[in-house]
Amino acid sequence: MVFDEPLQLASGTAFGPYQLTVETYGTLNAERSNAVLVCHALNASHHVAGVAADDPSDIGWWDNMVGPGKPLDTDRFFVIGVNNLGSCFGSTGPASIDPSTQRPYGAAFPVVTVEDWVHAQARVADRLGIRRFAAIMGGSLGGMQALSWAVTYPDRLAHCIVIASTPRLSAQNIAFNEVARRAIITDPEFHGGDFYAHGTVPRNGLSVARMIGHITYLSGEDMAEKFGRAQREPSADGAFRYGYDVEFEVESYLRYQGEKFSRYFDANTYLLITRALDYFDPAKRTGGDLAKALAPAQAEFLLASFTTDWRFPPSCSREIVQALLRNHRPVTYAEIEAPHGHDAFLLDDSRYHAVVRGYYERIARQLGLGEGSAP
Amino acid sequence: MVFDEPLQLASGTAFGPYQLTVETYGTLNAERSNAVLVCHALNASHHVAGVAADDPSDIGWWDNMVGPGKPLDTDRFFVIGVNNLGSCFGSTGPASIDPSTQRPYGAAFPVVTVEDWVHAQARVADRLGIRRFAAIMGGSLGGMQALSWAVTYPDRLAHCIVIASTPRLSAQNIAFNEVARRAIITDPEFHGGDFYAHGTVPRNGLSVARMIGHITYLSGEDMAEKFGRAQREPSADGAFRYGYDVEFEVESYLRYQGEKFSRYFDANTYLLITRALDYFDPAKRTGGDLAKALAPAQAEFLLASFTTDWRFPPSCSREIVQALLRNHRPVTYAEIEAPHGHDAFLLDDSRYHAVVRGYYERIARQLGLGEGSAP
Repeated sequence: MVFDEPLQLASGTAFGPYQLTVETYGTLNAERSNAVLVCHALNASHHVAGVAADDPSDIGWWDNMVGPGKPLDTDRFFVIGVNNLGSCFGSTGPASIDPSTQRPYGAAFPVVTVEDWVHAQARVADRLGIRRFAAIMGGSLGGMQALSWAVTYPDRLAHCIVIASTPRLSAQNIAFNEVARRAIITDPEFHGGDFYAHGTVPRNGLSVARMIGHITYLSGEDMAEKFGRAQREPSADGAFRYGYDVEFEVESYLRYQGEKFSRYFDANTYLLITRALDYFDPAKRTGGDLAKALAPAQAEFLLASFTTDWRFPPSCSREIVQALLRNHRPVTYAEIEAPHGHDAFLLDDSRYHAVVRGYYERIARQLGLGEGSAP
Repeated sequence: MVFDEPLQLASGTAFGPYQLTVETYGTLNAERSNAVLVCHALNASHHVAGVAADDPSDIGWWDNMVGPGKPLDTDRFFVIGVNNLGSCFGSTGPASIDPSTQRPYGAAFPVVTVEDWVHAQARVADRLGIRRFAAIMGGSLGGMQALSWAVTYPDRLAHCIVIASTPRLSAQNIAFNEVARRAIITDPEFHGGDFYAHGTVPRNGLSVARMIGHITYLSGEDMAEKFGRAQREPSADGAFRYGYDVEFEVESYLRYQGEKFSRYFDANTYLLITRALDYFDPAKRTGGDLAKALAPAQAEFLLASFTTDWRFPPSCSREIVQALLRNHRPVTYAEIEAPHGHDAFLLDDSRYHAVVRGYYERIARQLGLGEGSAP
């Protein structure tokens, strides 16, 4: 979708024209009452579910959650995925050509915020003729967008589903983001953000950034279970090789993840998205009072968190729950015992999926959407 | 101290000649029974206590613990600090001149292990005429050296004091070390470890490495308390600046720490010491059975851990305690409630210091060293 009218950003910039890549699943009903917006986190996109037409290996990032007969059942709901402004999967971002210079935006691309994304998504909804969503849903940074929707456009969503998220980043969260950004920015191939013009990619920095991020997505327990101190290619007697090449499995895994990421993700987008995370803080406007910040919300809420998530631990979700309860909002909250850290929100955990499935059943009944297919 | 005879390293290399920088405090008694070896962690040195003769701002890294009237009282004990082989504070390390090439060792410097350091320290003790230490003490990586002493030279120490340490790094610990190493190794100024010859220093990589490390030394609670989401130089209305320069206090702090570290620490030493951490695992020889690995120990033990230390949490110390108890070793264990994460072992916490002071009182009584000065 191309938008000619500039978008007013939190930073003060009016940005446009721009395009957003949008993918939809299922059918919008005649009453236009069954639409669900799914918001993506750091490295995901509009491609929420199913298999890409041009690449059978390109499965949607939340395919275990969204699809026919799945917890968010596309036989009943019309699901929309939007690649956010500034991302690198088809929507206008730092690597896109700036029409005013005919060169990639690079460092000139504006900083965007969660609220900016929400406004951009509202325009997508307008374009699709959706006045009010049955639900807006997201995990992690996606959950921030759902929460922001609930206070920015309170009458445009019936339900708000916020998973493994937080009302604001902690100092430690910001610290990890900052180290990742420093790794990118100090990579000589970054060229102050204008690496496209130099024909380079700051792959080393991007790779280190991803490795740092990856450690924070997994729980210590999970890493212990998956890798422990297993050696990569131990000699017959198990002796170490005494060098700085890969010695342990966990090193090999992390290097691979960093390497892979650096081949498909845009470095400026990484800066931009981590900064949007840092800046998110709806209670900043209300002197730190989260209940006051969430007072405009009219939706019903589902929140879920995971016990071993140390990036956005359950206490963060509980804080949102308590602020909503202080506003007498109907809230369902599930704290899922799961070993997989922050990444758990993307995984197929039966208890977690049962909670989400049950919640969508309730939405469907409430909106009179009829029975879904059995799982 | 210069050692001409090569040291046989775990890697198989016989390394030498080499020198170790040694600093001592207090007086060795006639019976040579009051010597305490203090082992250092990642970025510390032989300069344990007091003020450097040539620089009044250069205070020893454990000066709150070691000195006249302090928990480790140098009026009673003869304390020895040794800068470990491969470090960069006067002992032979990667930046030293290799006599066989007349150029800095660089990438040619061998990987060393905790056990290698222990053997090198034993030679220092021999040189000083110390057959048996009253105690060997260390925190974090220093604690690993103390523990290794207890099983490598069981009859050469009466007491072993292991603080905020672990019997082995977890997968997550190794992962953080590996990311830090990648940041250094992929810095173009690193030149495969031979940056000295190129007249460069991989300061960006070293700085990122230190920032990562630093996050793991502090607790999340501590960072929240110290920095929270405080902005560095907020505008009058507190608005963000919407950019990638320092916006939050925690970013400024981390950048400063990284910057400072990159000016005085050697990049190859950083690799070497993190690798020594990774490799430490006394139970590797005994099929993972820590009790069996610690069976040779004859010392009495003090272990201490800190509740908010998520790098080497109390469970790591408890595992050592249990393995020692299975060997019927006398063990004192203190789990200190302290907010400062792993760094707590370096800080002046009254309960922690009282435990160490009391333990040294007991050692002094046991060895008939007489009364110390009142604190």
